[in-house]
Amino acid sequence: MSGAEKADMTKLIELNGKPLGGGKQPLICAPLVGRSRDQLLAEVHIVAAKKPDLLEWRVDFFDDIADTAAVVAMAASLRQNAGGIPLLFTRRSIHEGGEPIALAESDVVELYRAVCASGHVDLVDYEMSRAAGDLQRVQQAARANAIPLIMSYHNFQETPDHDFLCQRFRQAEQLGADVAKVAVMPRNPQDVLTLLGATLQSSQQLGIPLISMSMGSYGALTRMFGWMFGSNVTFAVGASSSAPGQIAIEDLNAVLAMVQKSPA
Amino acid sequence: MSGAEKADMTKLIELNGKPLGGGKQPLICAPLVGRSRDQLLAEVHIVAAKKPDLLEWRVDFFDDIADTAAVVAMAASLRQNAGGIPLLFTRRSIHEGGEPIALAESDVVELYRAVCASGHVDLVDYEMSRAAGDLQRVQQAARANAIPLIMSYHNFQETPDHDFLCQRFRQAEQLGADVAKVAVMPRNPQDVLTLLGATLQSSQQLGIPLISMSMGSYGALTRMFGWMFGSNVTFAVGASSSAPGQIAIEDLNAVLAMVQKSPA
Repeated sequence: MSGAEKADMTKLIELNGKPLGGGKQPLICAPLVGRSRDQLLAEVHIVAAKKPDLLEWRVDFFDDIADTAAVVAMAASLRQNAGGIPLLFTRRSIHEGGEPIALAESDVVELYRAVCASGHVDLVDYEMSRAAGDLQRVQQAARANAIPLIMSYHNFQETPDHDFLCQRFRQAEQLGADVAKVAVMPRNPQDVLTLLGATLQSSQQLGIPLISMSMGSYGALTRMFGWMFGSNVTFAVGASSSAPGQIAIEDLNAVLAMVQKSPA
Repeated sequence: MSGAEKADMTKLIELNGKPLGGGKQPLICAPLVGRSRDQLLAEVHIVAAKKPDLLEWRVDFFDDIADTAAVVAMAASLRQNAGGIPLLFTRRSIHEGGEPIALAESDVVELYRAVCASGHVDLVDYEMSRAAGDLQRVQQAARANAIPLIMSYHNFQETPDHDFLCQRFRQAEQLGADVAKVAVMPRNPQDVLTLLGATLQSSQQLGIPLISMSMGSYGALTRMFGWMFGSNVTFAVGASSSAPGQIAIEDLNAVLAMVQKSPA
């Protein structure tokens, strides 16, 4: 399959007029990690003012996560205060670097279903390692409400090998994800090359947009240059970081501008 | 051989109190490409004010390259006006991206010998693909005057494969270089990973400091992050660039500062 054919087949996701996938430079996503309604409202004002392309609400940080009505109301408020910036809804599990929460996974699935049904979010992220039935129910809810679904894999301990990483991207596509995300921790500089190489190869072989990053200080370059290897979203700090190695939105914008002006 | 043993064996080159090799971040080298004495004097003032760690005088740009006394006098003037920044003397051949000059290679070798004998330069670069006898004569002159010698390989057309690149680094060491330099042109993002991977592996196996870069816009990230993969010098623009993809000293400093402050 030629590159052009593959690009035609890639499903582009439009977010506020910008494509997630196929772009020359990545969308910038800033996390929201407040624990209370007040904290989140203060945070979204600071972060939205920095004009990222996407806001990720990490609901596992939210103290009221067990109160579905409170979560749905919070999503509505975040969107109201986001200045038109699309909202990504994410519960990161403790297995993949998230905060401890008091919900059973079945409750989490119901929460995703309620949030999708509310229409207050633009994108959702659910981990591909969750049970098949849970994945299916989240996917059905997302699809029923025309909300694109990111299926994600995180490893905060290490960077698995090239084939394992390629399989994670492929698995997300096979499971019906609209976007595949892989975030791993490098233990050495070679691990950073492994993540970039697996992203590049997968982006050439798969038909959905990918997101990837190598975390920590070794991985900083992937947050700035991962787009060159097929990663379509990079996470940067508006007010608080949600994972090690994220750099400030201002710094990321500065680097992207440098590369844009760099002579070919 | 363990990393620690290898680090002990690596010959560090001290330049103005800063080590070339073994550093956490790279030395920044800015090229001087003026064609006349006046142009070079104007250029060195602009460039030295930006405080790079090293200045590379690309003598192949110099109109008076055939006049040995003029070259030696120019080297002396550059050093006088460099504000203490060490001077790297380089004739890049047309085979490896340099300017056309009217000298036979034997004349070039004599020029290197005269410049080394003058003591007006701190480092010299000579291409490892030149004839064995020429390499030997340049090396003898450098050694006799205690001037470290970079042996370099450039390819402006493409990026050869991993093994070829590793062989170039190794060849420089085998030929007696004090530093090995490899600069190649990427045709795609994978080529950038190939250059970084070969640099990383060679830096772990060889006992001399390495310099490497991937040129052009794809390669911009190697100019910012090559040090993480074992490249000890990065070339950045003070006044004028000498190769495609070089970014401004100010931009490079900004990125290096971002990485320094980035949380581990």
